Amino acid sequence: MKKTIVILTFIFIVFGLSGQQDSLYVLVIHGGAGNITPERITKDVKPAYVAKLTESLQAGEEILKNGGTSLDAVEAAVRVLEDSPLFNAGRGAVFTIDGNNELDASIMCGKEINSGAVASITNVKNPISAARKVMEESPHVLLIGKGAERFSYEKGLEIVDPSYFFDQERWDNYRELLKRQRKGGDTGMNDPSPDDMMGTVGAVALDIHGNLAAATSTGGMSGKQFGRVGDSPIIGAGTYANNKSCAVSATGHGEYFIRNVVAYDISARMKYKGTSLDEAANYIINDKLKGLNVNGGLISVDKEGNITMPFNTSGMHRGFVNSEGQLEVKIFGDE
Amino acid sequence: MKKTIVILTFIFIVFGLSGQQDSLYVLVIHGGAGNITPERITKDVKPAYVAKLTESLQAGEEILKNGGTSLDAVEAAVRVLEDSPLFNAGRGAVFTIDGNNELDASIMCGKEINSGAVASITNVKNPISAARKVMEESPHVLLIGKGAERFSYEKGLEIVDPSYFFDQERWDNYRELLKRQRKGGDTGMNDPSPDDMMGTVGAVALDIHGNLAAATSTGGMSGKQFGRVGDSPIIGAGTYANNKSCAVSATGHGEYFIRNVVAYDISARMKYKGTSLDEAANYIINDKLKGLNVNGGLISVDKEGNITMPFNTSGMHRGFVNSEGQLEVKIFGDE
Repeated sequence: MKKTIVILTFIFIVFGLSGQQDSLYVLVIHGGAGNITPERITKDVKPAYVAKLTESLQAGEEILKNGGTSLDAVEAAVRVLEDSPLFNAGRGAVFTIDGNNELDASIMCGKEINSGAVASITNVKNPISAARKVMEESPHVLLIGKGAERFSYEKGLEIVDPSYFFDQERWDNYRELLKRQRKGGDTGMNDPSPDDMMGTVGAVALDIHGNLAAATSTGGMSGKQFGRVGDSPIIGAGTYANNKSCAVSATGHGEYFIRNVVAYDISARMKYKGTSLDEAANYIINDKLKGLNVNGGLISVDKEGNITMPFNTSGMHRGFVNSEGQLEVKIFGDE
Repeated sequence: MKKTIVILTFIFIVFGLSGQQDSLYVLVIHGGAGNITPERITKDVKPAYVAKLTESLQAGEEILKNGGTSLDAVEAAVRVLEDSPLFNAGRGAVFTIDGNNELDASIMCGKEINSGAVASITNVKNPISAARKVMEESPHVLLIGKGAERFSYEKGLEIVDPSYFFDQERWDNYRELLKRQRKGGDTGMNDPSPDDMMGTVGAVALDIHGNLAAATSTGGMSGKQFGRVGDSPIIGAGTYANNKSCAVSATGHGEYFIRNVVAYDISARMKYKGTSLDEAANYIINDKLKGLNVNGGLISVDKEGNITMPFNTSGMHRGFVNSEGQLEVKIFGDE
């Protein structure tokens, strides 16, 4: 009996050390890149953003530090941001040109190179969890609209009335947009202003088992044509994860992120050219896309735990937490 | 006056030679990879397939040989295949689990790195033309469902009653699938049989101006969950074009083509590793995907006019035509 206890204690200590204290984990999140300045995020409201980003990091870290998976961590981190009206995902999503909320999300597992995504859904409380169900409980990768909603309902996800996603400030912005369009003859099919594209959320993580995962969720572009799908639910564009390279979640002018296959391009540059994560990500955001006048940013973590959070806008809601006890949250470009 | 005529004649000859006779153009098409054997495509029906594939090549060549663009050529070639019930795109598309036709398509311009796509549309006669309108007349890349249909209508595309896409043989196959599912308790969310995935169509082209383009159109997977979107409308997965590397259109088990970002991966291997088109395409289809038990194929042309048409199934409807006067159409693997 005493011997058993000694052995169990030994096993516990060894596992405890190797599995938790010694093992590397990292979680990086974003709450969208855009025209994020001290004039817009004033001293009065900034603490709310910092608190919510911190809460998201803590939700993911709780999983990672207990040996949980990167998939669970990115899902948990994104759910916190979806539940907050501060960000353009889940509750508080922007409105389509028709005055509705249409939500997109995707998730990817770097170990299995598996992924799931949903687009244009209107009544699933947490789109990122719907994306995960598509990955794990359907043979499909991308389900859209009513089909995705029916699937989510069948899988037992929380269904809400579409009015759950309503946020007064977003609605006021939408009405302002309509006024501008009426004045300028804008049909809603023109290029958006940078103000209209803020707030996509995402998370990437490396867990102590060495597995990478990425997740992205969004309400899309304010005043978007109904049925418009951006890069967030597109594997390779807004989201990508591969244990052999990196995990990526992007935010920005989605159409250009699709055309440039941004998330996968970082992985490809690392795998085929030997480029470092930071170099690949910075080139795409601050050279290639900036050269095309395309606004956006991304977060990424590689298989070694290196992270990068480049953006070419005035700010990006972002933060990270890791197994070394660091936790940082930043909003503006010069922080 | 005489001098002017001489000069004009000279200019005409030079332009004629450099612009048309001497300049390279290539068009490659596919009508889907799958379980395509002499037992299924019997001697009686094979001529109809060969004739339709030839008609598609001729429609595209007519444009290319007169100095037209690769974009016009791939659109024209795909429209011919969409209009034919022999292929799983446009008229003759397979049925969703609910007994409807939901069509996906995408197109990409290698010069502008621009693209357009539609998914889950039910009443636009030629989905590939809807994809092109999205690319050229909207700020978006991907429009889905009712939003894509409204946009197509507003842009003057031909709208048809959904019954236009009905094909008796596809319907019979669908009813057989339902019977199998009822027997086996299959919910329609399981992996499809290879028989259920045939017939996506696509085209890639290089025009005499050196511009590449790619186009893909499909009815998707037979018995698919409604709202399921495969790789065909996903830029980077089923379709990609870039003047610096190649143009690709893929066909096969779409979910795996999305997860492996197949079309863009060929371009990335060429650009970042210096791999040849043929080597990159063959590796992905006959090594990587085959190793994962994933059925499919693709067609591609690079900026030099080299072409490749690998597939790991028993057959793939395919063909090419070029400025050297070659025109070939093949169906089975051993042809």
